[in-house]
Amino acid sequence: MIVVMKPDATEEEINEVEEKLIDLGFSVHFSQGVDYTTLGAIGDKSGVDPRELEILNEGVAKVTEISEPYKLAGRNFHPADSVIEVGDVKIGGEEPVTMAGPCAIESREQVETIAEYVSDHGASILRGGAFKPRTSPYSFQGLGEEGLKYMRKAADNNDLKMVTEVMGKSQVGLVSSYADILQIGSRNMQNYNLLREVGKTDRPVLIKRGFSSTVKEFLMAAEYVMSEGNEKVILCERGIRTFSDETRFTLDLSVVPVIKDESHLPIIIDPSHSTGVRDKVIPMARAGIAAGADGMIVEVHHEPENAKSDGPQSLRPPQFAALMDQVKQINETLTREPVKA
Amino acid sequence: MIVVMKPDATEEEINEVEEKLIDLGFSVHFSQGVDYTTLGAIGDKSGVDPRELEILNEGVAKVTEISEPYKLAGRNFHPADSVIEVGDVKIGGEEPVTMAGPCAIESREQVETIAEYVSDHGASILRGGAFKPRTSPYSFQGLGEEGLKYMRKAADNNDLKMVTEVMGKSQVGLVSSYADILQIGSRNMQNYNLLREVGKTDRPVLIKRGFSSTVKEFLMAAEYVMSEGNEKVILCERGIRTFSDETRFTLDLSVVPVIKDESHLPIIIDPSHSTGVRDKVIPMARAGIAAGADGMIVEVHHEPENAKSDGPQSLRPPQFAALMDQVKQINETLTREPVKA
Amino acid sequence: MIVVMKPDATEEEINEVEEKLIDLGFSVHFSQGVDYTTLGAIGDKSGVDPRELEILNEGVAKVTEISEPYKLAGRNFHPADSVIEVGDVKIGGEEPVTMAGPCAIESREQVETIAEYVSDHGASILRGGAFKPRTSPYSFQGLGEEGLKYMRKAADNNDLKMVTEVMGKSQVGLVSSYADILQIGSRNMQNYNLLREVGKTDRPVLIKRGFSSTVKEFLMAAEYVMSEGNEKVILCERGIRTFSDETRFTLDLSVVPVIKDESHLPIIIDPSHSTGVRDKVIPMARAGIAAGADGMIVEVHHEPENAKSDGPQSLRPPQFAALMDQVKQINETLTREPVKA
Amino acid sequence: MIVVMKPDATEEEINEVEEKLIDLGFSVHFSQGVDYTTLGAIGDKSGVDPRELEILNEGVAKVTEISEPYKLAGRNFHPADSVIEVGDVKIGGEEPVTMAGPCAIESREQVETIAEYVSDHGASILRGGAFKPRTSPYSFQGLGEEGLKYMRKAADNNDLKMVTEVMGKSQVGLVSSYADILQIGSRNMQNYNLLREVGKTDRPVLIKRGFSSTVKEFLMAAEYVMSEGNEKVILCERGIRTFSDETRFTLDLSVVPVIKDESHLPIIIDPSHSTGVRDKVIPMARAGIAAGADGMIVEVHHEPENAKSDGPQSLRPPQFAALMDQVKQINETLTREPVKA
Repeated sequence: MIVVMKPDATEEEINEVEEKLIDLGFSVHFSQGVDYTTLGAIGDKSGVDPRELEILNEGVAKVTEISEPYKLAGRNFHPADSVIEVGDVKIGGEEPVTMAGPCAIESREQVETIAEYVSDHGASILRGGAFKPRTSPYSFQGLGEEGLKYMRKAADNNDLKMVTEVMGKSQVGLVSSYADILQIGSRNMQNYNLLREVGKTDRPVLIKRGFSSTVKEFLMAAEYVMSEGNEKVILCERGIRTFSDETRFTLDLSVVPVIKDESHLPIIIDPSHSTGVRDKVIPMARAGIAAGADGMIVEVHHEPENAKSDGPQSLRPPQFAALMDQVKQINETLTREPVKA
Repeated sequence: MIVVMKPDATEEEINEVEEKLIDLGFSVHFSQGVDYTTLGAIGDKSGVDPRELEILNEGVAKVTEISEPYKLAGRNFHPADSVIEVGDVKIGGEEPVTMAGPCAIESREQVETIAEYVSDHGASILRGGAFKPRTSPYSFQGLGEEGLKYMRKAADNNDLKMVTEVMGKSQVGLVSSYADILQIGSRNMQNYNLLREVGKTDRPVLIKRGFSSTVKEFLMAAEYVMSEGNEKVILCERGIRTFSDETRFTLDLSVVPVIKDESHLPIIIDPSHSTGVRDKVIPMARAGIAAGADGMIVEVHHEPENAKSDGPQSLRPPQFAALMDQVKQINETLTREPVKA
Repeated sequence: MIVVMKPDATEEEINEVEEKLIDLGFSVHFSQGVDYTTLGAIGDKSGVDPRELEILNEGVAKVTEISEPYKLAGRNFHPADSVIEVGDVKIGGEEPVTMAGPCAIESREQVETIAEYVSDHGASILRGGAFKPRTSPYSFQGLGEEGLKYMRKAADNNDLKMVTEVMGKSQVGLVSSYADILQIGSRNMQNYNLLREVGKTDRPVLIKRGFSSTVKEFLMAAEYVMSEGNEKVILCERGIRTFSDETRFTLDLSVVPVIKDESHLPIIIDPSHSTGVRDKVIPMARAGIAAGADGMIVEVHHEPENAKSDGPQSLRPPQFAALMDQVKQINETLTREPVKA
Repeated sequence: MIVVMKPDATEEEINEVEEKLIDLGFSVHFSQGVDYTTLGAIGDKSGVDPRELEILNEGVAKVTEISEPYKLAGRNFHPADSVIEVGDVKIGGEEPVTMAGPCAIESREQVETIAEYVSDHGASILRGGAFKPRTSPYSFQGLGEEGLKYMRKAADNNDLKMVTEVMGKSQVGLVSSYADILQIGSRNMQNYNLLREVGKTDRPVLIKRGFSSTVKEFLMAAEYVMSEGNEKVILCERGIRTFSDETRFTLDLSVVPVIKDESHLPIIIDPSHSTGVRDKVIPMARAGIAAGADGMIVEVHHEPENAKSDGPQSLRPPQFAALMDQVKQINETLTREPVKA
């Protein structure tokens, strides 16, 4: 932590800051500039709230933290990329991975039909919700365990792995007994009880970015899971909330290279929930892969008109096939890496 | 729902929209403008996703919903203000209510000292966290049930009611056995399992607005609780996330008169978490009351330097006393109502 | 315009709305729903402020506009894509166009060196600032007319067209005498005096989206130019301001397919100003082309360490060459169009 | 400037940073922490772009600026509050100042009627637009110089000072010949040509915050004016653009105490443009004064139904009178200052 004092800070004020830092267990290193005195606090004290120094007295101009709080998720102490393996599927490796399927599991037939199609066209993981978080209490809330059973079966029948959302701590055991990957939804990204609980399992965890979460908060959510011993975390950008509301959310693709700098964890994108309508899903999926994402999670439905949730953002099967073809070509383009900055 | 067709929409496209609306159970009412044809869908079908019409064909220009989805929380079918009673404390009545106390319960002495002070200076409800949601897994997470016990005792000893956060569905029973009001934190505003669970209790529920939630989502969170039979919901604006980051969050005070228009539920403000530093808490607390809020929830600590969380935003006792005095005067000013718009 | 009345609206209130609409020159069409009465206002009155109806009386629930206010920029009355021709360069056609060059014109040698390089590697338009809008009054403000001269020469010597910013109404004549395309900067997107003035010239106008402008405002800026008779407008997405501040701005790529729906005008992207650092420029440039943009405007400098402005976001020449190669391949991928939604 | 190196930074990388800083004219001060090495750059070089260091090599973790770039507008070198005097009206003193009047000057009678009313009820400055920036080119654009004449007359007849917007550099002379205070609109906050031009006059300048401007950019706009020699700058918060769109903009009242910390300049609030409807103007005006603003600028119209612009947000005369009464009382409350943080 570095504390910058104002040009007119008194000696008393500077001394008070020094004493406070020593109290907190730091050793202090002074630096005298033209107008500003700075105090460098040396020591690794992750629990200290920088605001305590900011408001200590009138002489303090500003306080900056030096080290990042995500020791496990950050790249500083773990420089190499992590590749998460789910059976023979690798997430974070050279090939982008595709998770595809319906928004919600609606019936055995529905999920079998879709699973077969997406498997035939290059997906390796089946997505779908059995427990659905819905804005309205009056909307369809999912089939529950029955949905998990249909989904597991459809995944196995079509050589797919399976990812599905777990909405609460008490569901973790049940969902883990069916799913290969546990998904934490955007609205639960800071549900710490839930993050800890999935951290105690051995299942890879897909964390969707809260739609107003900073990169730091996003990585701290991963840190919660990892601090319980489960280091198999996959990040997912799914759109942030901004004033620009022509699409449901604003897909923040620049977070892809930012996460690549800050963290060793893989990051995929969700073009379906961010845009909210299928004709915008396709260009944004392509854009995400072109930005360097490790894959995508995308909604597909064979009869979107009859879908029980989010039909308008589900791709029709031939659209999915065409998109997979484009994604493959774009990824090939990327392997010819640009000259390093 | 109203569907507006483009100037160049074909008869076929218009017919397709009409048929779709009839399929969905609406009756349809046509209106022919100079350039635009509009179809009014008549009937109360809250489950219909407007995007289904938006993307039905190229001829659709836009779709507008007519009715609001919050039947219980909205003012349309419940015009009179709701007043929530907690013992003899009234929330939503003529006097603004003050919930005050430490961020976290740290010890029996701490909570007793603060409870006595805030009670003496006009607070009627004791706030404090026993289970603390923290961004970092390495930060202090609260005393748990022990904290609830200390807090209940301090409330009873000082003639205060008690509000505290419940972080997960499985804690609802435990927290309800101590607290008068159950608080849903900002990060859990869309934790639907939790909302349903507190909706099954008879405790008033204080819902903090998610820091990127729209007014509609905020009221739909209330709707989740109310749809389970518990109509005693208190709303709380605690700051939204914007680009303007000189304070922790941007306190969105205009939401106070907006909620008063849309809903019959009381709304209070939290100037502590929105600003993050105590010298900004005071002006924003005053501003919130001046904007017409039904009260405030504010952090107070007798030794903020030693607080285990959020010390920098906790008011010192004499600041709290001065603020209470100002709030009282501002509220008196408001009773002389402006001429109606 | 459609006015929706509340369920408890009185006959008097409904009559008042009807009379107001008639006063404003509309004819009125009633529709009676289960709970809500709606009044459709028929007629094309673009100057009416919908808030006038919203607040007319307590019985009004909401007001929706039917027609878009951008008659010239919108696609409704101009369904075919516009292709802007600048000599033999086509913007909005099948090939994405590349505008490249330094942030600021610094010297004759600098702009010649860069122009030659970008021309050799596939750019068709030279970018560069002679008048620079800078956040600080103490920063380098550009070479002025001298810079325009150097730039024109470098463009001509290297078979490039030239785009440069015009910062104020009084500069329009001067800049037009050198440049092929007049650029309106993000901070001037709602400088209406300037928009009108460039609308009176015969030069194509590149309008950068204000960093907090809605799509409607963006298209209304184009409308200002077009309403003066100049229909050669090129739009440019350059990042919006959001809470997500790991990059300078958040490149809002979903605006590309949105603009394609709403308008017939071409849209390009600026990955340099949105990201602010060169290693993020490359993935976001690729992403923009993959999202369907009609081209890009990108900063390149042969000695970015010595650039007088924005050196950190300028690509080094070999990076630019590699990016052009990737962009070409990605564009080829896109020609195989996905199945229509 | 402080440069923090990563834990695994090489000696070579550290040396490169040191050399770069020396090249830039700084002297360098090292500090060795547990994991991180930091280099303090000593010297006052306001033109250096911190990104140049950030991307210098892989070993750099982050860069922090120490000093603020606003030397004239900032409080660091000018600790005492500035009071701007316009004749006998003091802005920034103990009494909040009220600027009131119509959105646009429409006729001699209109402005006389309103000026008389607001003067009688406590306003000291007449507001009104003669040149109107409108989102649509088809909307009423103001009366121009004729409007200025009517306004000057109405101000003089009613013992009021006069503030009006100047939209472009070429209008500065004309507007200065009528107005006491020159207003820079939100959309022109970064129109640097215009800022410089008003900086050359001797008129106080009212700068409205750009609706997506940071505090730093806001103060840098003031710096542009002040750097030309005109130190009489008044700041105005008028709402920012956020996802929360129930009101036109989100009035960011916490910026009031933030500006009071950072700058010596007075700050007022505009509750009319931020909310957009008159029944929200009143609570937000009260809130702004309660937050500590030095005054307000508010729209009043005697016949808002017939206003040529922004009628819906204009207060009716009796509302204005009631508001003035409340504001006076709230201000009295504030004089009893809270105990200092």
